[in-house]
Amino acid sequence: MTPVIALMTDFGGGDYYAAAIKGVILQVNPKAVVIDVTHDIPPQDILHGAFVLRQVTPCFPVGTIFVAVVDPGVGTPRRILAARYSERTVIAPDNGLLTFLHRDAELQEMRVVENRRYFAGSLSSTFHGRDILAPVAAHVSLGVPLDHLGPAADHIEILDVAAPRLDPDGTVHGEVMLVDRFGNLITNIAGRDVSGPRMPRPHPEVWVGSQAIGPVRTTYADVAVGQPVALIGSAGLLEIAVNRGSAAQTLGGGRGTAVTIR
Amino acid sequence: MTPVIALMTDFGGGDYYAAAIKGVILQVNPKAVVIDVTHDIPPQDILHGAFVLRQVTPCFPVGTIFVAVVDPGVGTPRRILAARYSERTVIAPDNGLLTFLHRDAELQEMRVVENRRYFAGSLSSTFHGRDILAPVAAHVSLGVPLDHLGPAADHIEILDVAAPRLDPDGTVHGEVMLVDRFGNLITNIAGRDVSGPRMPRPHPEVWVGSQAIGPVRTTYADVAVGQPVALIGSAGLLEIAVNRGSAAQTLGGGRGTAVTIR
Amino acid sequence: MTPVIALMTDFGGGDYYAAAIKGVILQVNPKAVVIDVTHDIPPQDILHGAFVLRQVTPCFPVGTIFVAVVDPGVGTPRRILAARYSERTVIAPDNGLLTFLHRDAELQEMRVVENRRYFAGSLSSTFHGRDILAPVAAHVSLGVPLDHLGPAADHIEILDVAAPRLDPDGTVHGEVMLVDRFGNLITNIAGRDVSGPRMPRPHPEVWVGSQAIGPVRTTYADVAVGQPVALIGSAGLLEIAVNRGSAAQTLGGGRGTAVTIR
Repeated sequence: MTPVIALMTDFGGGDYYAAAIKGVILQVNPKAVVIDVTHDIPPQDILHGAFVLRQVTPCFPVGTIFVAVVDPGVGTPRRILAARYSERTVIAPDNGLLTFLHRDAELQEMRVVENRRYFAGSLSSTFHGRDILAPVAAHVSLGVPLDHLGPAADHIEILDVAAPRLDPDGTVHGEVMLVDRFGNLITNIAGRDVSGPRMPRPHPEVWVGSQAIGPVRTTYADVAVGQPVALIGSAGLLEIAVNRGSAAQTLGGGRGTAVTIR
Repeated sequence: MTPVIALMTDFGGGDYYAAAIKGVILQVNPKAVVIDVTHDIPPQDILHGAFVLRQVTPCFPVGTIFVAVVDPGVGTPRRILAARYSERTVIAPDNGLLTFLHRDAELQEMRVVENRRYFAGSLSSTFHGRDILAPVAAHVSLGVPLDHLGPAADHIEILDVAAPRLDPDGTVHGEVMLVDRFGNLITNIAGRDVSGPRMPRPHPEVWVGSQAIGPVRTTYADVAVGQPVALIGSAGLLEIAVNRGSAAQTLGGGRGTAVTIR
Repeated sequence: MTPVIALMTDFGGGDYYAAAIKGVILQVNPKAVVIDVTHDIPPQDILHGAFVLRQVTPCFPVGTIFVAVVDPGVGTPRRILAARYSERTVIAPDNGLLTFLHRDAELQEMRVVENRRYFAGSLSSTFHGRDILAPVAAHVSLGVPLDHLGPAADHIEILDVAAPRLDPDGTVHGEVMLVDRFGNLITNIAGRDVSGPRMPRPHPEVWVGSQAIGPVRTTYADVAVGQPVALIGSAGLLEIAVNRGSAAQTLGGGRGTAVTIR
């Protein structure tokens, strides 16, 4: 069985950081298959990284090892965790990056990464991705069990993410959680909160701030080109798009913009 | 024989879309070798994607399977095609993305992808890359023949791309088709249309709009640093560059800018 | 032993250039493991490429073959080199891209790439990455020894990089060499030049232009959020950062900005 190691970082493409991680992994385990999830998480944006990590994890094969590095606290006493969720392993700093995965997947084991035997020979204080997470992941891919990495972890940092709120009159108050490359506004409102039968009102409409978008539809082309549309996106969340355009540009919303269904 | 699956999308790097496709492929065929062509096709720019797809296809080994996703019409009745051109297979929405490949390569088989047996278990209406194209490509890499995917396709969407026009006096009227990362203006005029012996005039000059660029030269350094130069680029097309600079910035051209040889 | 071929270019992601190189390599050696170092070296920025190449090379396994393409002089008589440094091989244009590797690694063999037997069948004058460097690297990965590629090279282009200067009174004069994705200002001053015991003064302070940054610290969080901090970064060089922010934005520095320790 070829071990897949999938990398998600905010290192961008122009620097040596992402490649250093790949090289270190291949030095420890030359047979590892290294896959880029992305290195373009917005710099230091833990929430964005937590969302992407949660979305991609179930898509990958059982046994995949994820190295997730969005780590503005590198060099502080923040811990590094190695956790197994739904038969995949994630190595990540304990800074909230596991928030959504922890909420939605089945936790099977969680360890604090402390055993220096699996670290690089010398440690920098600003690049633990290269010096700790990469070699640890490679050793795990060689068969090192998680309980060799350190003691069991009994708590985990969770981001304080706004949850949608339901009014007695049936209005749902949510907000934009992130904006994707196409300018789609992805909200914190789950599909199950807005699907017709479960809504207290027959024909609810979606609002972005003070702009009415219409009912929840199925796909982009359910409205004319250039028009905004609300739908349940591929992550199972309510999103606001513009058919063949950018909702972020057309409507002007961004993270935190209020989205209501009423 | 290791099956190579090459991915070309407009998903960008910051979201989970590109990685979801990789994960799904590896779930279906853990031995697939997944290669990124690019995920940075400009969002929804089918013409740009069609150009890149045509350029890269012959570079890859016979047997390579391409997954091409620039798909603004996802969720509409637009079809998905699986086609074999010159011994490579391409899975793509039928929206013009195959325009240049279809023009320049040898079509050997073309199918409409309809057999849900090779799709994901549940389908979103906004992410067929993950739910249809990726699992279909992975099954093809396992040996599923194209004729299992659906009925033969007997037509295909072709983009309405401007062709260069030749005046009786020998003037060639073309235009900029796209701008690359270096600011090179890549035109729709093929090298064979401008090579000396075939030209009706002895010393034709290239013009970008109303700016004279000089004759068609061989490489960037045939002019001084900072000067514009016309040459036949690596795609076999006339392109306008600036030696160690950016023609797009210096000359101000973009897609659709008139380029004439006279 | 699986041969790893690692690619570093300034091709960006939106064009076909990077993928063409991958395809050509796989055509010559279908078993090659192709790894992206990065394709986002700033266009034509040889200094940036030289820095990244030097940083990543030792991270990769012995035997790795690097294809490095930042090549504004393509099509001129500039040479292409194949060199072995510290048991890794690098194929690159001879334009300064090897400057830091040559300074810091052990040179074991250096050849001028001239043997057309290992080139593509037809050569463009603007894309030697695809037509020369990629097929040559793939042949090397199949076991072709470097001395089959061409004659021994006895000199090499070295960039004229500013070196830090030490005043008799102990002041170190350096400058910013590059800015990374996080806005960290990476200088040309090595860690050994600033570590406490070696400094002629007890409590030296770092200055960026006329702004005092304080002493050399250990990690970002040694200062409050939003404050600038000087530290020895993961490349072993003095860098100026802002805790959870961007030094480039906060302080306004860029390549060439004076950095002094006094």
